[in-house]
Amino acid sequence: MSSAPFKLDANASSESLNSAYEQLHAQHQKFIADGLSLDLTRGKPSTKQLDLSNALLASTPEDFLDSTIDLRNYGVLDGLPKAKQLFGTLLGVDEETAEQRVFVGGNSSLSLMHYTLWFAHHLGLHAKQQAWRKEGDESGEHIKMLCPCPGYDRHFSVCEQLGVEMIPVPLTGAGPDMDIVEALIKADPNIKGIWCVPRFSNPTGEVYSAATVARLAELPKHASKNFYVLWDNAYSLHAFTDQAPSLASIEHAAEAAGTLDQIIQFGSTSKMTFAGAGIGYMASSEQTIAAFRKHFAMASIGSDKLNQQRHINFLSDLASTKDHMALHAEIMAPKFEAVAKALHDHFDDSDLGVWSNPQGGYFVSFDTRPGLAKKVVALAAEAGVKLTPAGATFPNGNDPEDKNIRLAPSFPEIGEVNKAMQVFVNCVKLASVEQAMQQ
Amino acid sequence: MSSAPFKLDANASSESLNSAYEQLHAQHQKFIADGLSLDLTRGKPSTKQLDLSNALLASTPEDFLDSTIDLRNYGVLDGLPKAKQLFGTLLGVDEETAEQRVFVGGNSSLSLMHYTLWFAHHLGLHAKQQAWRKEGDESGEHIKMLCPCPGYDRHFSVCEQLGVEMIPVPLTGAGPDMDIVEALIKADPNIKGIWCVPRFSNPTGEVYSAATVARLAELPKHASKNFYVLWDNAYSLHAFTDQAPSLASIEHAAEAAGTLDQIIQFGSTSKMTFAGAGIGYMASSEQTIAAFRKHFAMASIGSDKLNQQRHINFLSDLASTKDHMALHAEIMAPKFEAVAKALHDHFDDSDLGVWSNPQGGYFVSFDTRPGLAKKVVALAAEAGVKLTPAGATFPNGNDPEDKNIRLAPSFPEIGEVNKAMQVFVNCVKLASVEQAMQQ
Repeated sequence: MSSAPFKLDANASSESLNSAYEQLHAQHQKFIADGLSLDLTRGKPSTKQLDLSNALLASTPEDFLDSTIDLRNYGVLDGLPKAKQLFGTLLGVDEETAEQRVFVGGNSSLSLMHYTLWFAHHLGLHAKQQAWRKEGDESGEHIKMLCPCPGYDRHFSVCEQLGVEMIPVPLTGAGPDMDIVEALIKADPNIKGIWCVPRFSNPTGEVYSAATVARLAELPKHASKNFYVLWDNAYSLHAFTDQAPSLASIEHAAEAAGTLDQIIQFGSTSKMTFAGAGIGYMASSEQTIAAFRKHFAMASIGSDKLNQQRHINFLSDLASTKDHMALHAEIMAPKFEAVAKALHDHFDDSDLGVWSNPQGGYFVSFDTRPGLAKKVVALAAEAGVKLTPAGATFPNGNDPEDKNIRLAPSFPEIGEVNKAMQVFVNCVKLASVEQAMQQ
Repeated sequence: MSSAPFKLDANASSESLNSAYEQLHAQHQKFIADGLSLDLTRGKPSTKQLDLSNALLASTPEDFLDSTIDLRNYGVLDGLPKAKQLFGTLLGVDEETAEQRVFVGGNSSLSLMHYTLWFAHHLGLHAKQQAWRKEGDESGEHIKMLCPCPGYDRHFSVCEQLGVEMIPVPLTGAGPDMDIVEALIKADPNIKGIWCVPRFSNPTGEVYSAATVARLAELPKHASKNFYVLWDNAYSLHAFTDQAPSLASIEHAAEAAGTLDQIIQFGSTSKMTFAGAGIGYMASSEQTIAAFRKHFAMASIGSDKLNQQRHINFLSDLASTKDHMALHAEIMAPKFEAVAKALHDHFDDSDLGVWSNPQGGYFVSFDTRPGLAKKVVALAAEAGVKLTPAGATFPNGNDPEDKNIRLAPSFPEIGEVNKAMQVFVNCVKLASVEQAMQQ
């Protein structure tokens, strides 16, 4: 297989197309014959990354002594004070305000987001605030959420479960297109929130600019009182290098704008320690956290404080957490370089694909020529390379141009990433040539 | 303070009432002067009980090796296969069917119950089943739940949050009065469930009889398709002696009746291992667990598998779990004996109180003369003994006769239980005499 950039001339003769097709098809058959089984579907940490936190698996009873709280018993609904401080700093919340502004939960920030939306939709998050569903029709179908796209499928599925309509808005490389976002919100009070993954966005990898953050912090001024900016800062410390762009503090911007009640940050250690046994947390204003706590008290007597203490013992503070994240970066960076190199080698100066070069996070976003994403994913599956289903990065699984593919190279070892990318680029070429032959 | 049974004659002279009042009031003032701080409010395990499971706090990475699943990573939404088997057996589910009939979650069975009711109310639990709220009025206020009373306040608060109306039904000492339950259900299709704590019921301590279990298993035949028996078997293994009454298997009864889809069992290790860091689980038919799993998948990628594995390592199997529970019983039994003795010594042959003598569980239920529960709780608080708020054992905190008080002697040490009971019995006498003086 040639590694020279692949060109597909709009005026290519049918003979040259046929010849290219034959070659690519033969290569594809060879991959199929190899019986590969590679998986680039989900943003899962690799075994080596998980090994970085194995100290969490070793403990003695003395690790769990607390002078004031028996960590084994019921209680402490909103998380240990030290956990609030630690995880608050990861979201940019000052230690002095963390006790009231941070909520530390169980092993999943997704669960905290799910609860937040359910409470806001069915009950009203704040005491005097209207439940979203009371503003839409009976089934809540007129309640809407802005979804910067491509985005995270699990954000969309929470909305889908609630019957909340999703409105895709374009991303710019520096966050959502704020002109469009503001215009939509001013025009429609039934828009009740916007999903944001502000640093190393899933899947584009972009980092919201300071200007975008400032405008998002101002958004509640244009929206209804029960509108929320849902700030899923899942990759806050997940840069590959020190040179990666930083993210402005939305808390500071929201405090200045007087909108903090309507800005809710989420995060977890799923991609810092253990993906299945980490700690999820959230932050907002004192009032919003108190409102969440009140509703959540009907669902739980408190999350697992032992695991919170394990994480306090292991991560200690922001500086030490950053050191730990540098070890993750060492493992992640070469895999993303491998993806970037494959795409560069094969598609630079071609118009077969447009892709992101993230400096952190877990994903590379690749756009095929319109109409080919499903085809490419199907071809790759044939050849033993599982990719995230095409369309998953759009609400209701519907990518209107059928072009976006999310590549998640974190879990496989580097040799497997290289192999998977060989298959992938061949699939893109093959699908593109097939399409050209039909035109 | 005399320990002879206290009599309060209906024809007592005002002089003798005044004299009794003076004596009881003086004693009450002495307790106040003692500056006590005792707490009988919640069913919390004591420090000694928690210590029984301290092996869970000691681990090495080798404890978490699994041949097929990386316990640290994402996935396994419904719990580890071995966890399903172990916790299934605690609910009477056969190992062969546990994989499909059991769901193992995070640290809280309350959360699983909360999710279950939210899903049933807002979405419909099974795919083709109507959401409860679509059958009531817009606010869901006509949807109803049967609540055997006195009962567990956190069951009631889940209903309250959903806007589900609660209908109290009396308990008989062998479970709910099934004649009343069946008549209510036959008359009103908007009744969508019944809360049950079938063994050592909270707070009466009664164990549902085999006949009650059989009739409960038949209930769905009389009810709508989206009616559920919510079987919170929180104290399944929490007897004080081997002689405590056993509980018939509702799973077997429901299988025979063909109603298993509508019987949902819940349990947790909160009162076996660590109250704040245990494992919650549930069981039903294959179809119902699959339906729950589908909804839950929008809220979580999976619960903490490491903590599941810790519990598998520690509890091993049903037999070894029973041995472990015998150690709990050794700590609990003397406290309940102390409560029983105080009540016996002071109120036997009097009509100042009626109380339960549970053979397991976490509570003693005490009924004062009508109209006195709030007063007694307030007096006890004055004297430094915190009791569960009067009314908490009834829906919406409303005990129509204001007589039920829940005593929870598990957490304090035995000396404190004895002291708290001295205060309590004096408060009951004082309140009763005061009432008699006003009549």
